[in-house]
Amino acid sequence: MAESITTALDAMGGDEGVAITLPGAAIAHRRQPDLRFRLYGDETILNPLLEQYPALKATAVVEHCDVAIRMDDKPSQALRRGRYRSSMWQAIEAVKLGKADYAVSAGNTGALMAMAKFCLRTAGAVDRPALAGLWPNLHDESVVLDLGATIGANAQLLFDFAVMGAVMARALTGKPRPRVGLLNIGVEEVKGLEEIRDAGQMLREANLANIDYVGFVEGDDIGKGSVDVVVTEGFTGNIALKTAEGTAMQIAGYLRDAMRQTLRARLGYVLARPAFGRLRAKIDPRRVNGGVFLGLNGIVIKSHGRTDPEGFAAAIELGLTVARDGLVGKIDRELSHYHGSGALVDDGKIAKAGAM
Amino acid sequence: MAESITTALDAMGGDEGVAITLPGAAIAHRRQPDLRFRLYGDETILNPLLEQYPALKATAVVEHCDVAIRMDDKPSQALRRGRYRSSMWQAIEAVKLGKADYAVSAGNTGALMAMAKFCLRTAGAVDRPALAGLWPNLHDESVVLDLGATIGANAQLLFDFAVMGAVMARALTGKPRPRVGLLNIGVEEVKGLEEIRDAGQMLREANLANIDYVGFVEGDDIGKGSVDVVVTEGFTGNIALKTAEGTAMQIAGYLRDAMRQTLRARLGYVLARPAFGRLRAKIDPRRVNGGVFLGLNGIVIKSHGRTDPEGFAAAIELGLTVARDGLVGKIDRELSHYHGSGALVDDGKIAKAGAM
Repeated sequence: MAESITTALDAMGGDEGVAITLPGAAIAHRRQPDLRFRLYGDETILNPLLEQYPALKATAVVEHCDVAIRMDDKPSQALRRGRYRSSMWQAIEAVKLGKADYAVSAGNTGALMAMAKFCLRTAGAVDRPALAGLWPNLHDESVVLDLGATIGANAQLLFDFAVMGAVMARALTGKPRPRVGLLNIGVEEVKGLEEIRDAGQMLREANLANIDYVGFVEGDDIGKGSVDVVVTEGFTGNIALKTAEGTAMQIAGYLRDAMRQTLRARLGYVLARPAFGRLRAKIDPRRVNGGVFLGLNGIVIKSHGRTDPEGFAAAIELGLTVARDGLVGKIDRELSHYHGSGALVDDGKIAKAGAM
Repeated sequence: MAESITTALDAMGGDEGVAITLPGAAIAHRRQPDLRFRLYGDETILNPLLEQYPALKATAVVEHCDVAIRMDDKPSQALRRGRYRSSMWQAIEAVKLGKADYAVSAGNTGALMAMAKFCLRTAGAVDRPALAGLWPNLHDESVVLDLGATIGANAQLLFDFAVMGAVMARALTGKPRPRVGLLNIGVEEVKGLEEIRDAGQMLREANLANIDYVGFVEGDDIGKGSVDVVVTEGFTGNIALKTAEGTAMQIAGYLRDAMRQTLRARLGYVLARPAFGRLRAKIDPRRVNGGVFLGLNGIVIKSHGRTDPEGFAAAIELGLTVARDGLVGKIDRELSHYHGSGALVDDGKIAKAGAM
């Protein structure tokens, strides 16, 4: 812990920009006093606001950028308008240049993905990156990837996602041999899922020392917490994530309605209010705010765009954890190891999958 | 309503077979006294049990079948073992032969899909079938399809699903011009989603009189109820459905825990118990039990395998509603109309999509 870690913040990113990112950084800094900050954004906005946070100011360097990526910029627009110049780009580039250990942005996901890929490039052994998130379940939390960085995946890529997800799970949960499952549907004989079956076979045959591959899991296994790492390609992962968010909101809405309908229910609600508070804290998306781009030459954390300072602080601390863990190096070493091993290279299936 | 409708029941299907299906049929019959039944299953089990339900017995014909498809039979096994002979097959075949207006089974989904497709074949204008379900949302319910009948879909098939889903939504909700959305992820510029974009363009250009195509929706729009019909291919739809089920279970688990932690919360819970009961009823999967296979030459209803008599009765009544509505004929007419129209046939994109 002696070594100091520096985080590069896209201070302008997110629905409310500096109004969330600066207070968020101040919270994270209070809890993690060793953390150093580089703040990328408009200095005419940042500097006056920073006066309110003297402790943060003392450890922060402000880097002026005159472009801020908008939440509705398309990735191609963002790259055109903001490459080299925007706060989002410069925060990512700070990681590339070794000026920071990781970058955090609450800016728009598509732009962040495009810039992170363009600036940092995928790590040697990785074909395409994944966005991995911590997903709360009945017991604790699991790592779910890909949440939308890469659409479609062949067997090799799903295998790589499994390895990357397991590295992240080890960093965040401390479990030495995380249980890993491939997301699939119950009806296994339907055509079109060859890549998932092949990835399963690869994981079984590779018989990895630090991955407990348990086989296929279904959508309801995510919430049940049947495994520590759930692997899927990005389209399905993103739909699953958003569907779960929608369901949580829906049930919270039902619950509110139910508690308002009668006087008796309202009384019960008042009595049980602290319990409802605990429930709210439990399903609070801020608690596990932040996805990690895996497979790039550097760590980029995606915070939810509509988060608050507490949520943004959680994203900063997520980055701190994986940076301290040396996540990027571990992923590269593990994947290089597997890709270099005979088990993978000699297998005809992988060659086929790779050609997809 | 004068015309009597006959339902063919796979009496052996489901986790508990006749122990659920017969009482379920009795409930449905009590509520829908005009409904006639053909019960497919082992007569040595069915006949004695039927004595307990004299009203149902008076309107039911028992058809003996000596094979029952097991819940863990793979679709190919089920076809091998059970074609022509099993209760599942014969219930479906009764629809084909005009002996029943629709079939209901709580048997295993893969086997039911395989048999329904094999026995009934897809309707003239439809390429592949979809499984459509009613999904509760914050306001009411929406139709979501495909929940797993067909993996992968080109633009033409997604278009067809939109038309079929809208026909079902009109039958079940009475809305003359249901709002239809294509399930997509927010990051639109990522490669690999051409078929969804093309389907969107087709729906916009077709400008259908009885479909209000609203564009892309995301996973959280399902629970929010942003549209009346959510269209996606079967893999994603199945993952979304199961993920939502898992999330609902997870939050119910959190809520239970929260209400047990302190005496005060327990007291509040006791007071609010009727409200919790209403919440439970609201998220009860039995309330909207039953998926409809769309696009076949006949109606087959899939009930959840782990349902209870009330849930099985709901599936029977779902079939009654769509059979009365003349769903199959309407789908065939609408799709034939669209497929026959210049707008679809002359479009290069569709030809391309069709070749996928």
